[in-house]
Amino acid sequence: MAQRYIRVQNQEGRIYYGLLKPSQSVQVLDAPPWLQGQPTELHLEPDSYQILAPCAPSKIVAVGKNYADHAVEMGTEVPQEPLLFLKPSTAIIPTSGEIIYPSQAQRVDYEGELALVIGDRTFGCTAAQAQNKIWGYTIANDVTARDLQQRDGQWTRAKGFDTFCPLGPWIVRELSPGARLQTFINEQAQPVQSASIDQMVFSPDVLVSYISQIMTLLPGDVVLTGTPVGVGSLQLGDLVVVEIEGIGRLENTVISREYTVVQTFGKS
Amino acid sequence: MAQRYIRVQNQEGRIYYGLLKPSQSVQVLDAPPWLQGQPTELHLEPDSYQILAPCAPSKIVAVGKNYADHAVEMGTEVPQEPLLFLKPSTAIIPTSGEIIYPSQAQRVDYEGELALVIGDRTFGCTAAQAQNKIWGYTIANDVTARDLQQRDGQWTRAKGFDTFCPLGPWIVRELSPGARLQTFINEQAQPVQSASIDQMVFSPDVLVSYISQIMTLLPGDVVLTGTPVGVGSLQLGDLVVVEIEGIGRLENTVISREYTVVQTFGKS
Repeated sequence: MAQRYIRVQNQEGRIYYGLLKPSQSVQVLDAPPWLQGQPTELHLEPDSYQILAPCAPSKIVAVGKNYADHAVEMGTEVPQEPLLFLKPSTAIIPTSGEIIYPSQAQRVDYEGELALVIGDRTFGCTAAQAQNKIWGYTIANDVTARDLQQRDGQWTRAKGFDTFCPLGPWIVRELSPGARLQTFINEQAQPVQSASIDQMVFSPDVLVSYISQIMTLLPGDVVLTGTPVGVGSLQLGDLVVVEIEGIGRLENTVISREYTVVQTFGKS
Repeated sequence: MAQRYIRVQNQEGRIYYGLLKPSQSVQVLDAPPWLQGQPTELHLEPDSYQILAPCAPSKIVAVGKNYADHAVEMGTEVPQEPLLFLKPSTAIIPTSGEIIYPSQAQRVDYEGELALVIGDRTFGCTAAQAQNKIWGYTIANDVTARDLQQRDGQWTRAKGFDTFCPLGPWIVRELSPGARLQTFINEQAQPVQSASIDQMVFSPDVLVSYISQIMTLLPGDVVLTGTPVGVGSLQLGDLVVVEIEGIGRLENTVISREYTVVQTFGKS
């Protein structure tokens, strides 16, 4: 089994990067692994920690329509260049975290995606160099309020709600080229999304090179590589699982929030 | 003169929040002022520090078309709700920092804006509550590659280049309601933008309330409130100054970068 790099919180609220052992205990690292964190003597027992998202990015750069079949299902063409957008870091939740269905939205979709974790400060790199800037791989769900995405034009609100970026459960260093991405709803046997990650239009190294010619990527930053065909809506109570071969399973449930939106729009 | 809250770097590279004194010396605070930083005995003399952007936000949330005349000049209508987008924090430069004209762009525009600095962790606040969440005010230039904005549809690339978010020079706690925002190019007497900030379609407190119902705002986060009519293009060598009455002047020059873009687009 590939080494799993994890981020956890202990019962006192202290946050650690660590290695997840087959016993489910965590060997603590003294720094994030992409900042040369080394294993320490501290081990956390299975019931003594909570899994967090595996990194705390300064930014999340995402890519739209990066699988041809998904572009078709959205009624659009594959872009000639990667189509970038940003998700705020406040949208991140870990595996087992709850996706909150916003009261402003009428349709909220899952989008299972491969996520890249950047290891080095990166500006202006080639695709060949990018391979060494990608420290590892994890899984993301680019949750999207589809109705707001279509209404707003800009995707920031639709993709920026708190809890709209499940990320994890951990990071692995290597990925086999044809690894399969699958999304499941409510433990149904049949996946709603199933694609090989090598069906991407722009490969991970090309994406990192492209982004790095616009904005500097920092250690721990995350790049979401787009979702394959098969997006669909989530309902309250749904369990959504995104699985990537060689990484693991990212599992989240959909809940409502007990609060009332304050109606502020209309001209002030 | 209103108290000026500044962020600086000394000659050893240490970063401090501080109070800018009329003598131009800086009295160092022991934490960011919105985290109850208190004045210390340490003073930095005028030639011993470099001004940084006045905060280091976890995110920059910006608003499009928030002055009616600007919406008209862009050939669009005023949105019914605030139109949000994000700029990456890697785009921030301080006053006197250089805006790098990207080789990918054919037209790069200035957009002078009032910037809000958030003081508290904020989710789901009303417009009335938002007034207390806005810790202070500074100035931003929402630099935009206009041709890429139109080509991409999503504004992330066009507004996300490194150096495309000049911010500063410092923060003040209060602003008079009718304060004037003016943008000047190359010290010409006539401003290219001149508007009162109360001409905004959605006021600062309405914007903060609206955003807070989507994503949690964190202490030090920045909200850009939109640009008034008069946007126009920048040329290499230009000095662009955004001035807001009661705050100060944000001054930046436009340069080219000596590097070659690696052509990575085209399908991989």
